[in-house]
Amino acid sequence: MTTKPDFNVGLIGSGFMGKAHTFGYASAAKVFDLAVNPVLHTLADISDAAASKAASALGFAHATSDWRKMVDDPAIHVVNITAPNALHKDMALAAIAAGKHVYCEKPLAPLVADAREMAEAAEAAGVKTQVGFNYLCNPMLKLAREMIEAGELGEIRGFRGLHAEDYMADATGPYTFRHDPAGGGALADLGSHVLATAEYLLGPVTEVMGDCVTMIPERPDGYGGVKAVTVDDVARAFLRFASGANGSLEANWIATGRKMQHDFEVWGSKGALTFSQERFNELHFFDTRDAKGRQGFRRIEAGPDHAPYGRFCVAAGHQIGFNDLKAIEVARFLEAITSGAPEPYGFRAGLRIQMLVEAIHQSSSERAWRSVPD
Amino acid sequence: MTTKPDFNVGLIGSGFMGKAHTFGYASAAKVFDLAVNPVLHTLADISDAAASKAASALGFAHATSDWRKMVDDPAIHVVNITAPNALHKDMALAAIAAGKHVYCEKPLAPLVADAREMAEAAEAAGVKTQVGFNYLCNPMLKLAREMIEAGELGEIRGFRGLHAEDYMADATGPYTFRHDPAGGGALADLGSHVLATAEYLLGPVTEVMGDCVTMIPERPDGYGGVKAVTVDDVARAFLRFASGANGSLEANWIATGRKMQHDFEVWGSKGALTFSQERFNELHFFDTRDAKGRQGFRRIEAGPDHAPYGRFCVAAGHQIGFNDLKAIEVARFLEAITSGAPEPYGFRAGLRIQMLVEAIHQSSSERAWRSVPD
Amino acid sequence: MTTKPDFNVGLIGSGFMGKAHTFGYASAAKVFDLAVNPVLHTLADISDAAASKAASALGFAHATSDWRKMVDDPAIHVVNITAPNALHKDMALAAIAAGKHVYCEKPLAPLVADAREMAEAAEAAGVKTQVGFNYLCNPMLKLAREMIEAGELGEIRGFRGLHAEDYMADATGPYTFRHDPAGGGALADLGSHVLATAEYLLGPVTEVMGDCVTMIPERPDGYGGVKAVTVDDVARAFLRFASGANGSLEANWIATGRKMQHDFEVWGSKGALTFSQERFNELHFFDTRDAKGRQGFRRIEAGPDHAPYGRFCVAAGHQIGFNDLKAIEVARFLEAITSGAPEPYGFRAGLRIQMLVEAIHQSSSERAWRSVPD
Amino acid sequence: MTTKPDFNVGLIGSGFMGKAHTFGYASAAKVFDLAVNPVLHTLADISDAAASKAASALGFAHATSDWRKMVDDPAIHVVNITAPNALHKDMALAAIAAGKHVYCEKPLAPLVADAREMAEAAEAAGVKTQVGFNYLCNPMLKLAREMIEAGELGEIRGFRGLHAEDYMADATGPYTFRHDPAGGGALADLGSHVLATAEYLLGPVTEVMGDCVTMIPERPDGYGGVKAVTVDDVARAFLRFASGANGSLEANWIATGRKMQHDFEVWGSKGALTFSQERFNELHFFDTRDAKGRQGFRRIEAGPDHAPYGRFCVAAGHQIGFNDLKAIEVARFLEAITSGAPEPYGFRAGLRIQMLVEAIHQSSSERAWRSVPD
Repeated sequence: MTTKPDFNVGLIGSGFMGKAHTFGYASAAKVFDLAVNPVLHTLADISDAAASKAASALGFAHATSDWRKMVDDPAIHVVNITAPNALHKDMALAAIAAGKHVYCEKPLAPLVADAREMAEAAEAAGVKTQVGFNYLCNPMLKLAREMIEAGELGEIRGFRGLHAEDYMADATGPYTFRHDPAGGGALADLGSHVLATAEYLLGPVTEVMGDCVTMIPERPDGYGGVKAVTVDDVARAFLRFASGANGSLEANWIATGRKMQHDFEVWGSKGALTFSQERFNELHFFDTRDAKGRQGFRRIEAGPDHAPYGRFCVAAGHQIGFNDLKAIEVARFLEAITSGAPEPYGFRAGLRIQMLVEAIHQSSSERAWRSVPD
Repeated sequence: MTTKPDFNVGLIGSGFMGKAHTFGYASAAKVFDLAVNPVLHTLADISDAAASKAASALGFAHATSDWRKMVDDPAIHVVNITAPNALHKDMALAAIAAGKHVYCEKPLAPLVADAREMAEAAEAAGVKTQVGFNYLCNPMLKLAREMIEAGELGEIRGFRGLHAEDYMADATGPYTFRHDPAGGGALADLGSHVLATAEYLLGPVTEVMGDCVTMIPERPDGYGGVKAVTVDDVARAFLRFASGANGSLEANWIATGRKMQHDFEVWGSKGALTFSQERFNELHFFDTRDAKGRQGFRRIEAGPDHAPYGRFCVAAGHQIGFNDLKAIEVARFLEAITSGAPEPYGFRAGLRIQMLVEAIHQSSSERAWRSVPD
Repeated sequence: MTTKPDFNVGLIGSGFMGKAHTFGYASAAKVFDLAVNPVLHTLADISDAAASKAASALGFAHATSDWRKMVDDPAIHVVNITAPNALHKDMALAAIAAGKHVYCEKPLAPLVADAREMAEAAEAAGVKTQVGFNYLCNPMLKLAREMIEAGELGEIRGFRGLHAEDYMADATGPYTFRHDPAGGGALADLGSHVLATAEYLLGPVTEVMGDCVTMIPERPDGYGGVKAVTVDDVARAFLRFASGANGSLEANWIATGRKMQHDFEVWGSKGALTFSQERFNELHFFDTRDAKGRQGFRRIEAGPDHAPYGRFCVAAGHQIGFNDLKAIEVARFLEAITSGAPEPYGFRAGLRIQMLVEAIHQSSSERAWRSVPD
Repeated sequence: MTTKPDFNVGLIGSGFMGKAHTFGYASAAKVFDLAVNPVLHTLADISDAAASKAASALGFAHATSDWRKMVDDPAIHVVNITAPNALHKDMALAAIAAGKHVYCEKPLAPLVADAREMAEAAEAAGVKTQVGFNYLCNPMLKLAREMIEAGELGEIRGFRGLHAEDYMADATGPYTFRHDPAGGGALADLGSHVLATAEYLLGPVTEVMGDCVTMIPERPDGYGGVKAVTVDDVARAFLRFASGANGSLEANWIATGRKMQHDFEVWGSKGALTFSQERFNELHFFDTRDAKGRQGFRRIEAGPDHAPYGRFCVAAGHQIGFNDLKAIEVARFLEAITSGAPEPYGFRAGLRIQMLVEAIHQSSSERAWRSVPD
């Protein structure tokens, strides 16, 4: 009945993020008024068996163990990369070479040089790209940015950002790819989200001072031995923004008890905002223009006044979930592709995050402040 | 690639709940390992134009203004009813007569007699039914019930339930179908959720004392005049449970500032639970067996330990949303249909809620306690 | 150096509330600009030894086991009664007969007739009286009342009040004077606070429907046996106010995990307030006049804008404590005595509370609504 | 009736902290079982009139405009210094020279050299000293330290501390002594509390990296002109502890909306604690030994299990206030004086804080990490 053109999705990987992408397409197609009809076309995974099983479970029409073949398949319109970080570059470059739009999970690539190569290749090829920073898709973050831009907080003076979880708090947990010196660590994994939020809200960071520490220096290697860990379990940074504001961040994956504490506070001359991803359908706003004796942080609950919440639910306070953030991310990307508008968070943005991560790492190693290149 | 049989969905209505059903099917198909492949087959709405538009937006293959025809279509396996309450009965009976499974939004029917007729018809026909009480599908409510059943709270002594919103707080808001004497009011609309939660957690209510009050006695009729309102804006009840516990409820749709306050507290001899739908990915647990000086309500965040949360996300604290509750509801219903297991919340359960609502209304009118029939 | 006249305090009892009174006088003398200089003159207790020990610890100049003698001592200006409830009447009447001002802990007397006799005696004698409802002395409650009176919430529609603690949750806890049929029970002990708050904020209650339940029917008697308990462990009531508003209350002393949950919510046509004694330096205010998309309950922290907070601390957010509420209560009473102004919460008010408690008890026994006499 | 010896208090200053000291003595004498009877003997202030007025209001027997005379008065046992920071040194040295115990508000002295001179003088003279870091007197901080020492959190890995208020957020607020380059700034004023808490809980800090920023570079001078501000409005630091743990702090006096946000989080291998001075009668504890699916931060409410809370109130959850923290501080000091035990927070501790503050300031100026001397 729909006359929308099909838009064939190829997905590489079927883990946590592969599922999230799939759920995102399925929801986006219902929730938003897309210009195209996303079709779950082909799923590529490590083996034929794994691919077939995942394709069946997730509803893809085809399965393959050969991602290169899928990338080159003329039927595919977009390639979604949710494979291990070390493979992002090859996969993305192949997809770009095949003229495909690419939607890659973060980090774009562990090394800045690789991320730059990917961003430049995409721009040269004229394909659209997206890096998965889905927390930015939260209507409450959009609200925060709009309030800041509209001057509701006055002049912005500072920022404090945190992303703390505890999935690496257990010292007996095994060494994983997240511990690899190239691209691993809490800053790359979690701090990248804080950096994305910080620049989304306050604009470019120009200078950083980092402090990256390893608290659990070795982990079981899975073969009865141990393996040294050199990446950061906790990373902190002081931040300077081009706007004149300053701030700080902490990334922490040994924060016992914390599951999803992507929090921030922004203070300005007229107001302030606080937010916690632990309760991400809320934004707390202090307004110095409220009457004397009646001032206080007010808990704004997400609702139809905060687009695109209303797409999911017509009533405030009912709450969207983590997967809904991904659906918004999918919809924004498809909107950019079909309308020709700039991508909301393309490879250039992903490169930017890697540059910031690298600058903080280097600053920490050198124990000195460091400028962030433009 | 999937070899699952198609399962054709017919939907009547395309408003708030019609959309929620649609999103539910789309998500459930991806998130759960269903035995069937749900297909959005036909959408029926008030006119051909409305139906076509909604079908296109929501991804249904067919559209019709004649719900009876859809109900009789042999291709349809399940009929989803999200039309105004007054139509539920005719639609459900027709669907049952056509041998279809029926998934009807709450209330099953405004009148107990009608609800009973529907439940009995379904049972006689051997079709599966479901009434939409999706808050019960929250993993944290399942956890609460499991903790109660396992004796983690000791002997259960009491319950306090509340469902407060403010969508009727504005006295200049127009008269709607929710204000109709037959089936309207805060108790039927919101209190029904509290009753469902109360019996889900503590078992049958045996006696009630109601207090139903109208605070805004007339509303604009939409034609320049006003119309008297007689249904309850606020309803309260004392509750006796068969278990020996007792409790209370409040339903309130003029609770200024409240958007989704479906809250409860359960206290037992060894522990207590508190919950708020405002933060429905959390359950707070007090355990008297915690060490002296270390006791306190602990905030349990929903995670993979709390099925079926893990279907949506492998990491705790990331949070599911309102529409995900509907996806769980869909999955449970399809599971009952395909496995032959009893429905989790069928028409008999919907009838039960109407009996409780009616008992409270009658108690309030008579200003006297009233037993609830079995 | 001070030229203020001495004001000699006689205290009967030295338990929880006896200490609180003492701390209250000591603080009030420093914190407020009183017209008199309170002197801790004589402490009366059950025996000479107990009285001496307590007097020494609390800083009273004299001690006695004969409260009647103290009451008649011409040096004493005010008699503070914190003895067991059953003794309040005799003590108060004796003090009134001796022309003393009387500051009596709640309940004024278990029986309405006794409370009335006490109130009338005091009025006939022209002495000033006070009943200890110190939660009313919270600056945030004063703020709440001022906001209501100023119309900041619009027309007041409803109230929900709760006072829940868990000090009787352990069924092995012994029978105490609080379990005595005359005057005992959760409603008298805790619900009285809710009633005081309700009328303080919304004005007179005119009609009630009560539900008083005993959940732990017998307790150890301290002599190896058990004793039947007939008073309420949980009491609930529906409330009608003279203003046209309605509401409810719950008093609960078996609320496992709760230590001091004296909470309320008030909703009006333009705004709402929520409060919890668990965090009693905060008042949460929802204002429908806030901009669209920016509305939410705002957490007002107590500060110098909320008199008499500034007497204790010049900076907001630093917080006053439970004993400070008592100091405010003391100061208000002394102000009434020295200025001749009406008492803020005299025996007449204490009588009123007992009338409400009795009406709810009778309503519960009769299972019927009951009017509250003026 | 008491046979306790009098202990005569001399107070210099009668502002915010002068009042707090006075309230502290008055409460401590009632609440604690002190070995002496504190007498408010003499109050010294800027002029005879000011001193007389304050002495009368606060209940001191004598008043003087000559603090030196009071310090030398043989009747005085302890000198309380709450005068402007720049005067602390001269006053304390004079009091020490006169053989008096000294209780000085923070900061002990703006310059480390001065603080050292004061500490050494006190030690040489054998008098007892105290610096007012009253947040450390919170029973919940004592609980936190006991839990850490008992290993309830396992190995301690990290700390995040914050003290944010907004009393300098208004750029039109005048230049005050708190803006003086010698001793002023948010780090000295607020960050000192974080440093005290950090070392109280985790032991010595060995290395710091500071970031001190001035956001409001000039303020009205009160004479129609403006005056440059060079002290920090926001100060941040990375911290290394001798224990091997690491952490961070932020001090912020332009944190719009924040009134008393002295918060911390401590994470260890087995558990974590979070605390906010905004709700300082609570400590939140996560315990990894709780059962799977039942874990969460639990809100421990202060009660008699957490000494010395029980001195103020026999029931949990009733809450102590800011002034009660001061009463505890007073009692601890008197205990040290009368028992001969070491002071809980003497001048040596105050010196330590100044050394940490200086190290952070220097680190910030030099933009380099800096060791903290022992």
